[in-house]
Amino acid sequence: MVKAAYQGERGAFSEAAARKLLGDAADPVPHRTFDEMFDSVAVGRMDCLIAPIENTLAGSVLKNYDLLETHRLTIIGETSLGIAHNLIAPRGVKFSQVKRVYSHPVALAQCERFLRANPQIDVAQAYDTAGSVKMIIENGRSDEAAIAGKFAAEVYGAEVLAEGVEDHHENYTRFLLVSQPSRAASIHVTTESADMKTTIVFRVANGPGALFRALAAFALRDIDLSKIESRPIEGRPWEYSFYLDILGDTADSAIQKALAHLEELAESVRVLGCYRRAEPLASNNHANSTTKGKMEA
Amino acid sequence: MVKAAYQGERGAFSEAAARKLLGDAADPVPHRTFDEMFDSVAVGRMDCLIAPIENTLAGSVLKNYDLLETHRLTIIGETSLGIAHNLIAPRGVKFSQVKRVYSHPVALAQCERFLRANPQIDVAQAYDTAGSVKMIIENGRSDEAAIAGKFAAEVYGAEVLAEGVEDHHENYTRFLLVSQPSRAASIHVTTESADMKTTIVFRVANGPGALFRALAAFALRDIDLSKIESRPIEGRPWEYSFYLDILGDTADSAIQKALAHLEELAESVRVLGCYRRAEPLASNNHANSTTKGKMEA
Repeated sequence: MVKAAYQGERGAFSEAAARKLLGDAADPVPHRTFDEMFDSVAVGRMDCLIAPIENTLAGSVLKNYDLLETHRLTIIGETSLGIAHNLIAPRGVKFSQVKRVYSHPVALAQCERFLRANPQIDVAQAYDTAGSVKMIIENGRSDEAAIAGKFAAEVYGAEVLAEGVEDHHENYTRFLLVSQPSRAASIHVTTESADMKTTIVFRVANGPGALFRALAAFALRDIDLSKIESRPIEGRPWEYSFYLDILGDTADSAIQKALAHLEELAESVRVLGCYRRAEPLASNNHANSTTKGKMEA
Repeated sequence: MVKAAYQGERGAFSEAAARKLLGDAADPVPHRTFDEMFDSVAVGRMDCLIAPIENTLAGSVLKNYDLLETHRLTIIGETSLGIAHNLIAPRGVKFSQVKRVYSHPVALAQCERFLRANPQIDVAQAYDTAGSVKMIIENGRSDEAAIAGKFAAEVYGAEVLAEGVEDHHENYTRFLLVSQPSRAASIHVTTESADMKTTIVFRVANGPGALFRALAAFALRDIDLSKIESRPIEGRPWEYSFYLDILGDTADSAIQKALAHLEELAESVRVLGCYRRAEPLASNNHANSTTKGKMEA
């Protein structure tokens, strides 16, 4: 079994991502914070970790970019999940009985239309989507529900009263699988795509055209980039580290030349991982999208 | 008087930024959320708003980037404040009496070293730094304190027990002053620097070298950029809007040519504002940095 650290309660989207990436070998272990999950892998208590890195509505998970830079770990896989929100209640509860709903503020914000259309339901914030399902099951009341992924309903034996209650269905989260470099070869990652992706972080000296010249190393070789992110450098106000997702393999000679070219220009360059990339759009949670918004009350 | 909307309670860093940008004409009005403060200006209830946009440790305030894109407002000024955290208690309370401290989670995280060195003090999360000062003054207990800016202590008549308790002193937040385009000329902004900055947002079609070519419009004209930020486009998974801060004035012919060049390449380009930029490092809160960490108990 592969011990995979993730942040959140049982039934979190990150746990579903761990099972998708590691298959039957997955032994997902909940952690309280992103810091704790990175520490667990750094000290060897866990084999790997699952970090949400980007959501198509909320954007980058900035904290996890910082943790990738501060720890000497490597990215070994990637997947994306469709984030469908559902109204979930204890078994036997009917939609018309629900008077209060709990969820994480980000999930509640993504379901505004549904909540406005159901003003008889009070809205209450909770620290976690899956955690709010756990709580309403423990409370066992017939007037409480939670908003979370379908997977959380399965984990806690709860019932889905309404599916796909989110405003925007184009809601996906991308997750990275991260391990110690020495453990990478022993972890079998479910193949997503035959194509590779390389993630790097670099710093360039401030000045006109600095980022432009850094990107030239890739553009002049027709190498495609799928993402750029910048994060502040501690102690150097208004200066940034740049993270790039490069579509390609560090074994390709064009990528090797581009990285050598970037090293000439940059203060520092580090490869954070080279891994099989996720299928362009994994929409497993959206499989039965025709039933979206359907009430089962 | 200029009605300036800001997010937070009286005594917030944003209120201090409003007073710095608008001088004696400032009439800062607290708002509960960033959304509400943008709405207030959009409907004309407020003359302008103050939006924190970036912190040198935490990075970009992503929500405010999105609100700048969705509202048809314009940036008319910029300033930065040194973010010094202080241990604040009701008057007469001694440091040795304090058993519990309240503050916003980000502020608490920025004061870890101080809190670890004082394990006799319990740590409790609050929704706001200035709001936690308001609360301990209302409670009026002799064993409670808050962590917040010095300005919050003045506003609520509280006492600073320890100054500069943050881990990293290179902690600055940059704020933007934003108004309706039609109101811009009537608001007098305290001059920061003689130099201008222009902020734009643009989208380019996906493809190898797309961002590189967009940046070429500036690099080939030796135009300096101080910041790039990307945000996801709703409904177009893994595609991004890019925000650029350009050092220069839209009245400069080089900038005009660069923007015309970018328009040839981009799906869309919008100027979000052209304004006098902040002095490179405004360190007003750090004026008496020699007393940093000094206990006044």
